Amino acid sequence: MSENTQKTAITPSTHTTPPAKFSHGVKKGNILQVAGQVGFLPAEEGKAPTPAGPTLREQTLQTFANVKAVLEEGGATWDDVMMMRVYLTDVDHFAEMNEIYNQYFEEQGLKAPASARTTVYVGLPKGLLIEIDALAVLG
Amino acid sequence: MSENTQKTAITPSTHTTPPAKFSHGVKKGNILQVAGQVGFLPAEEGKAPTPAGPTLREQTLQTFANVKAVLEEGGATWDDVMMMRVYLTDVDHFAEMNEIYNQYFEEQGLKAPASARTTVYVGLPKGLLIEIDALAVLG
Amino acid sequence: MSENTQKTAITPSTHTTPPAKFSHGVKKGNILQVAGQVGFLPAEEGKAPTPAGPTLREQTLQTFANVKAVLEEGGATWDDVMMMRVYLTDVDHFAEMNEIYNQYFEEQGLKAPASARTTVYVGLPKGLLIEIDALAVLG
Repeated sequence: MSENTQKTAITPSTHTTPPAKFSHGVKKGNILQVAGQVGFLPAEEGKAPTPAGPTLREQTLQTFANVKAVLEEGGATWDDVMMMRVYLTDVDHFAEMNEIYNQYFEEQGLKAPASARTTVYVGLPKGLLIEIDALAVLG
Repeated sequence: MSENTQKTAITPSTHTTPPAKFSHGVKKGNILQVAGQVGFLPAEEGKAPTPAGPTLREQTLQTFANVKAVLEEGGATWDDVMMMRVYLTDVDHFAEMNEIYNQYFEEQGLKAPASARTTVYVGLPKGLLIEIDALAVLG
Repeated sequence: MSENTQKTAITPSTHTTPPAKFSHGVKKGNILQVAGQVGFLPAEEGKAPTPAGPTLREQTLQTFANVKAVLEEGGATWDDVMMMRVYLTDVDHFAEMNEIYNQYFEEQGLKAPASARTTVYVGLPKGLLIEIDALAVLG
């Protein structure tokens, strides 16, 4: 197997330990997959994972930061993202999430077209309002 | 970056503007990702996105048409699709969706094997009964 | 089209017939997609698909076996898996699923890093507690 097609785990130092035997991100060849990220603050030793706050805005921005940290640790940027899956718990959060989403990506100064996206409404662990995962193809 | 690995947005002229800064489809290298499509009729200027009708059949067929439009605009066909994710709102719609699904793909005259699929039951915005996204690998 | 980029269906002999015109797995180039698998026992002619049992443990282990069968039929292993999507019906099943998950993958003796994962809580057909699909990139 050439180095290019080895599967590597992507583990930002800021990230909390996954609650099971999975990786926050993996890369193989030109494919980078980011696991479902939520709005947990950077890990602090001896402290349980803690959401950035109770609001959709706080959690969404922290979730973006967590996805971005995995992308960057894997040598990618938002411009490489092909698909984002946004999981919300409440249909009434859609408009506000879109507002935060648009503002965030404007500020990121994307050079490539925006990624595709699917948003659906599911159950999440208590206290969490949003989860996002992402598939990137490196150029 | 070679032309082959540039990320391009796929935006069928018939499609309603996405409700946020995302693309209906993106293509990079041989990967084409179709964003979550719903049963909205072709866009009409000055008119809000409108579902093809209240029934599962109307919405499913329009959703297929919307996915297909993205595929074709990106130079792909149903035969290139590897995975379809079908989001329904009601477990009781499963049998009827499968009937519509089978009939539709028989009529499409696929030359390659059918794609993989996952169907789950989630919340969707009011009035929408189905959403589908698709991952294609071009040959 | 070269042999390498032909799309092929992956159909383990043990698997029940899909309830619609989709494939349990498809492979094209180095991409292998496993369709949503549930905890159905190996198919028996003339018998409707039957879950391995009513418990989360029984269904989870059977679901893993079903995903693995598709991977192997397609010439892949767990080590090639980039992403697993785990669909549960009940947030209260998260801890138990993770226990089963960790134990299972320890026993599999993975050589590569664990895949990424997203877990969300959705509706599934009556009697089913878990569904899993997987995206693999072959080395």
